[in-house]
Amino acid sequence: MNTIGESTKALISARRRLIGGNLSISYKDPLQIVRGDMQYLFDDTGRRYLDGYNNVPHIGHCHPAVREAAAEQLSKINTNTRYLHENLQRYAEALTATLPPSLSVCYFVNSGSEANELALRLARTHTNAKDMIVLEAAYHGHTTTLIDISPYKADGPGGAGHPPWVHVVPNADVYRGPYKANDPAAGIKYAEAVAERIETIHARDARLCAYIAESCPSVGGQIIFPAGYLSAVYGHVRKAGGVCIADDVQTGYGRIGSHFYGFEQQEVTPDIVVLGKPIGNGYPLGAVITTPAIAASFNNGMEYFSTFGGSTVSCAVGLAVLETVKNTGLQAHAQQVGAALLTRLRPLADRHSLIGDIRGSGLFIGIELVTDRETLTPATEAATEVINRMRSAGVLIGTDGEFHNVLKIRPPMPFGFDDATVLVDCLDTVLGEIST
Amino acid sequence: MNTIGESTKALISARRRLIGGNLSISYKDPLQIVRGDMQYLFDDTGRRYLDGYNNVPHIGHCHPAVREAAAEQLSKINTNTRYLHENLQRYAEALTATLPPSLSVCYFVNSGSEANELALRLARTHTNAKDMIVLEAAYHGHTTTLIDISPYKADGPGGAGHPPWVHVVPNADVYRGPYKANDPAAGIKYAEAVAERIETIHARDARLCAYIAESCPSVGGQIIFPAGYLSAVYGHVRKAGGVCIADDVQTGYGRIGSHFYGFEQQEVTPDIVVLGKPIGNGYPLGAVITTPAIAASFNNGMEYFSTFGGSTVSCAVGLAVLETVKNTGLQAHAQQVGAALLTRLRPLADRHSLIGDIRGSGLFIGIELVTDRETLTPATEAATEVINRMRSAGVLIGTDGEFHNVLKIRPPMPFGFDDATVLVDCLDTVLGEIST
Repeated sequence: MNTIGESTKALISARRRLIGGNLSISYKDPLQIVRGDMQYLFDDTGRRYLDGYNNVPHIGHCHPAVREAAAEQLSKINTNTRYLHENLQRYAEALTATLPPSLSVCYFVNSGSEANELALRLARTHTNAKDMIVLEAAYHGHTTTLIDISPYKADGPGGAGHPPWVHVVPNADVYRGPYKANDPAAGIKYAEAVAERIETIHARDARLCAYIAESCPSVGGQIIFPAGYLSAVYGHVRKAGGVCIADDVQTGYGRIGSHFYGFEQQEVTPDIVVLGKPIGNGYPLGAVITTPAIAASFNNGMEYFSTFGGSTVSCAVGLAVLETVKNTGLQAHAQQVGAALLTRLRPLADRHSLIGDIRGSGLFIGIELVTDRETLTPATEAATEVINRMRSAGVLIGTDGEFHNVLKIRPPMPFGFDDATVLVDCLDTVLGEIST
Repeated sequence: MNTIGESTKALISARRRLIGGNLSISYKDPLQIVRGDMQYLFDDTGRRYLDGYNNVPHIGHCHPAVREAAAEQLSKINTNTRYLHENLQRYAEALTATLPPSLSVCYFVNSGSEANELALRLARTHTNAKDMIVLEAAYHGHTTTLIDISPYKADGPGGAGHPPWVHVVPNADVYRGPYKANDPAAGIKYAEAVAERIETIHARDARLCAYIAESCPSVGGQIIFPAGYLSAVYGHVRKAGGVCIADDVQTGYGRIGSHFYGFEQQEVTPDIVVLGKPIGNGYPLGAVITTPAIAASFNNGMEYFSTFGGSTVSCAVGLAVLETVKNTGLQAHAQQVGAALLTRLRPLADRHSLIGDIRGSGLFIGIELVTDRETLTPATEAATEVINRMRSAGVLIGTDGEFHNVLKIRPPMPFGFDDATVLVDCLDTVLGEIST
């Protein structure tokens, strides 16, 4: 049982009056978070929480590198890309150095939504086509066009359905889908759905603009694609003249441990990569990186200018985050801690029948809860109960997936071995409480 | 003649390789800006420039209030709106206190583009209609849907034209349009075009969603609407069931001197107000404020969440900017300096036949250059020449308008009386050089 203090109650009441109602607050007993320190958060009573959820503070809550970079640049000059400044070039150099050589032209914006919007504009201008292939339960952002291509929104509560130029393919989900993890050809089989949709597009006398997918679908349920999936998909897409967009907003910068970007694990090179959330560690920052050919198509006479995108401060912060990720070995850390976390989580499945699947890579982990391991009936209410009880016990995680039955573990990257033990023990206890 | 140093040449070359080509750089001889101080900018050689152009650093380049607010909050906690934090409520309270009482519900985003995108979504959800009425040469942002409603882009170079649900009305431009400044009914007459477009919409069996306009069109050419224009427009729009959106991104926060927001000068209360650029003084920040009724319509089951929008740092910076504007009398300052600037500019029209019109309010000023005062033929090349020569002389202004022939003066708000003299003298000299 948590105690909600008077100041928290007052904030909830003010928020109801002043802020749009469709912005929900996490947890049954909302948290007033007043301080952060790497992988820990502190509420207004001084209580500490282990943060197993927030991927935006990638290098850690309140990392000094971000504060120092922002404060220093804010004292010199914060201006836009209509003037020259070395920060833009330094950041673009550092970022493209982490990517395949073909991805060499950068655009900087202020969020993942702005980045996906731009990726779509690049693809449309390059292909002169409009039809998109997207994944079931995908979420790519909150603008009108991005909701159109986000079945999680368009086909969810309050949605108006997706338009006819959006073609939804099943997720390559080896737990819930028809082809299972033990099928070595699962990737190729899931990719067949893309080939079929391309036929549908041609049948309606249209052409494929692009295939877009999160490199590991996060909102879709912390899904790890089977080997060979994206490579087969990209083959179909390119044959049809389409562009391959990798939304690496959730998976970039070493989170998945084995690779720096999610798409690398699938052994593909996208035509457009979209980055967001972690790259600014909370400073509003997004980036789109593409090939010279696509950039040339986009340079069709219409200016592309973002007032804040690529500003001297944005780039200073972006560079500080990237250098910290690189210089402090966070990718290797994520791989080691993530592996330990998975190893400690797996035995829980023997003790708790609610656990249907445990999956992940590095510090990108999902635990799917089901009421029945045969029918895979989603245990949505139990998942909500788990995260609320864990919050009461001082450990923060979330839920996601089409049925909101997947426990989402995606901590700040400094999350360590001891934290993994705390999280697993807490989950073990809570699952025990629920099943009794 | 300017000397472009080696480091500047290297930056230009790196930029061509690393950054999308449709992001142009200001001035024939690009500037490498390395330091800012209130209304002054400094290049890499230490040369000082008077900034008569940048409206984003509203309270001044590198204002300490922004640096301190950002650095302090970055050291405590930078997190999102899924948790409670007093900064969100404090900022929303302070912001709504500057607005008419009916505008009481806030949404915070990361840019003016994100804000206009959201405004459109609010209007569509509330009216369940799609057709928009927009101004000629208007610019509202860089997303797919915003380009659709921005004739400056959709009907400009590289544009695909505006879609059938977008209806463009002439600007209420008393210099270039059919009804002139000396016609007391000009406002009502220009508004007639909106009534006519509503008929067109009904004739195509559609309904009006919204009318959107910058309160003083800036990209459209620093235009000041005639009295009574927006009030007549809003009457037509509301009669047709449409929503009135005021894009006050360029004109908010006291810039126009006489009022805190541009729409107030027109004596109207919009249904949705959109804010951007100056409200974060360069920190990526945008806001949408609407009525409880529209917010209730939008709360239809679909979540609206912006990862960075309304974050603890965004709100700390937003609050610091707003408090500085309020506590240091910047609106009154803009009114006084703007009036002095206009008074000193007007005699230039007697000496320089290129000057067709001088207009403005507060520190939002436009000088329209024409080759012929009868035909009003735009002096586009001369305008470009003027800003480049002024840049060489150490004074930065820009051009805009449908024909890029309007000198745009929109300095950081600390711009003072002496700066006004420097700017006017420089313009006087440069116009003298050009005409000889």
